[in-house]
Order: sequence, then C-alpha cells, then structure tokens
Amino acid sequence: MTQAGPGRPRLREPRRPGATARAEILDAAAELFTTRGFAPTSTRLIADAVGVRQASLYNHFTTKSDILVALLEDTVDPTLEFVDTLDDATPPTVRLCALAWFDAAQLCAGRWNLGALYTLPELREDRFAPFRNAREQLARRYRALAVEVLGTDDPRAGLPFRLVESVIGIRADDEDLDPHLPEVLAIAALRVLGRTTDIDILDRAHALVVGAPGEASEIRPRCP
Amino acid sequence: MTQAGPGRPRLREPRRPGATARAEILDAAAELFTTRGFAPTSTRLIADAVGVRQASLYNHFTTKSDILVALLEDTVDPTLEFVDTLDDATPPTVRLCALAWFDAAQLCAGRWNLGALYTLPELREDRFAPFRNAREQLARRYRALAVEVLGTDDPRAGLPFRLVESVIGIRADDEDLDPHLPEVLAIAALRVLGRTTDIDILDRAHALVVGAPGEASEIRPRCP
Repeated sequence: MTQAGPGRPRLREPRRPGATARAEILDAAAELFTTRGFAPTSTRLIADAVGVRQASLYNHFTTKSDILVALLEDTVDPTLEFVDTLDDATPPTVRLCALAWFDAAQLCAGRWNLGALYTLPELREDRFAPFRNAREQLARRYRALAVEVLGTDDPRAGLPFRLVESVIGIRADDEDLDPHLPEVLAIAALRVLGRTTDIDILDRAHALVVGAPGEASEIRPRCP
Repeated sequence: MTQAGPGRPRLREPRRPGATARAEILDAAAELFTTRGFAPTSTRLIADAVGVRQASLYNHFTTKSDILVALLEDTVDPTLEFVDTLDDATPPTVRLCALAWFDAAQLCAGRWNLGALYTLPELREDRFAPFRNAREQLARRYRALAVEVLGTDDPRAGLPFRLVESVIGIRADDEDLDPHLPEVLAIAALRVLGRTTDIDILDRAHALVVGAPGEASEIRPRCP
C-alpha cells in the first residue's frame, strides 16, 4: 500500500495535490477524464500519471468506474449536505438563493470541470445509479424550493438547478470565470422564477453560505 | 455510391429517417455518439447501423470526425441563419426573446441530443475549430443582444445563451420536455437580465420565430 496512514511516512514525494495516495489518484483521473475522455483513459494511464504501479491503484479502487463514481459524488455530496443545514423557518427565497450560491461556488472551485462528465453515455449504466440518484435528489431539492417560491409547480421550477449547472458549460468553453459568478447565478436563480432579490435576501443567503461547514471554495464578499 | 441522386432509385430500403444515404449515416452516427459515446464508436459500427458497407460510408465522409463536425454544425447553423434575419430596428428585448425561443426549439426538436457532445474533450482538437468558431459566434450574438438589453456589459450578459443550452442537460437527464419549454426559456432569458416580458414582446418574438425560414421544429402556440 502506498497510502500513508497517520505517522507512516510516505515512500515517495507526491506528484499531485492531495494528502493521500487516494487523493492523488482522484486528481490524476479527474485530469485525464476531463481532458482526454473517460473511455480512452486506462487505469494504467492513471497509475502512470500518479507515479505508482497499477497494482497499488487497485488497493484504492477496484475499477476505473469506481474512480469516476468517487469523483462525481464529490460534485454533489457537499451541496446535498449544505441543503440539509438550511432551516425550514428561513424564507424559501433565501434558502434557494443560498443553495444556488453554494452550489455554483463548488462547481467553480473544483480543480477539474467534472460536471462535463455528467453527459457521458456510460453514466446510464447500473453501476452509476448511486451517483445518478444523488444528483436527482439534488435536482428535487432545488425544484421543491422553487415550487415554494413560485407557490405553484410549473416548468420554471426546473430552471434554477439548470442555471447553476451552466458553470459547467462556461468552464468547458474555457471562458474566464468571473469571481462573482456564484452570486450572479444566485440572483438569476430567483429572477427566472419572476422574483427580484432585495439586499436583505442576498445578505442572509451570503451569511448562510459563508458560515457553512464543508464550504470548500472561497466565497467572495458581496458584489460592490 | 449508395446516395440516391434525383431520379435514381435507391438500391435498398432505408433503415433510418433521412431522404439520402448521407442523412441516414448522420442519423445512425448521432444515435451511436449520444448513446454509446464518440470514442467507442467506429465507422464500421456506423456503417453496420445504416446497413451499408464501410467503403460506401467513406464516399460521404472521410473520417469519423467529419461526421461529428457535420452533426455539430447542424445544431448551430440554423440558429445563426435565424439571427441574421432579425432586423436591427426591432427592439433588442424582442430580438433576444426570439433568438432564445428559436434556438431552444431547435435544441428540443433534434432526434438526438447532440448538444451533449459539446463537452467532449476531443472537440478541443484543431479539426473541430470550424464548429467551435460557429458556436462561439452564436454565443457572441447572444451576448451582444444581452448587452443591448442591459445597457452595459457584465457577467449577466452570458446567461441567456447558457440558459437556452440547459435544454441539453434536461434531455441528457431523460426529463420530460415540456412542450412550452422554448417559450419558458425565452421569457427566462430576459428575466435573468432583470427584464420582465410583457405580452407585446412575447407576441412579436413568437411571430418572428414562427415565420422564420428553416424553422425545422414545431413551434407551439403561445402558452395559454
């Protein structure tokens, strides 16, 4: 095993970001999957990119698909945990605004644009069902909040989730990521529902996002 | 050549939609690329799906990439032609609304969800530059109209283009396509810019979209 446990010195200098061999494998796979493609990337290629033997890689992941599942779950799980921290007593406009803000910041912050893999045909296979379920759960949370804001369920209720995921397309096209994009999307998520965002909603949403545990990305101060 | 010219009877019954062998090849490739993936699909597999020999396929396309280019250009070219028909004397709100409506209808109407291929890493290669340029041109047209509507250039100006492309994510997730989705997105494209859409803007945009030449998809009557 090349994974360093507590107090066990690592046998080699790490080549990639990550405190463990597992994290290095995930980073290398994320780069290869997003820049070269999932189908053409072999576990051998991933092991080479990390600088470990293929056998070592199998200590952490049984298959290439397992690596993809771990990467994809990382794009959704923090936001699902965040949405669980929101208090039902908070107005739905504030909760939806905070959810969009947190989620957009996560999608902006990842080192690799993993959302670009959401449309892989392979994801329809059974082995990816747990990830698909987690992402569907997130889409349902967005929709439920949008329905609360709208007071009715109509096709607009699906738009905030899609709007936030537009971060993926912006990154795939190599466009510059404006540092205020998460806030811009949080405002737009209410606007597509026909709601305006007053300063009070934004302040309260911002406070929820900044104070969130597991808030991995840098949340900027409010737009000037 | 298996392509039937005018007055030349076809040598076999077509297996797929399309008036020509070329159209059949495009349809088969679109299905395989979107359901199986681009990398794992060979020209042999495409020829088999059409029911022609591989050599016949090469009469129409030199490489698998050429087929992908033709398919991708079909997702953008009709909308680029449409935007050129819009009169500068028409208010920018009406033009942007019409552009979003037409484009969303096109993305909804295609038999296969070809936009799901926009994030393929292969598209960064030089041979796909003509398609990337066409799509960038479309994004610039959206942005220019959004800046006209806003009266200023800020990160919101990129959102209408991204919002319309959310059709691709909705289709990739196998969600039901609401028949009024193009209209809903046309309204949302103005709302993300902080503009409301009155009935006059919608009526005028709808009239432009319905009357457009090359309007391949069925444009629904206005929402009740």
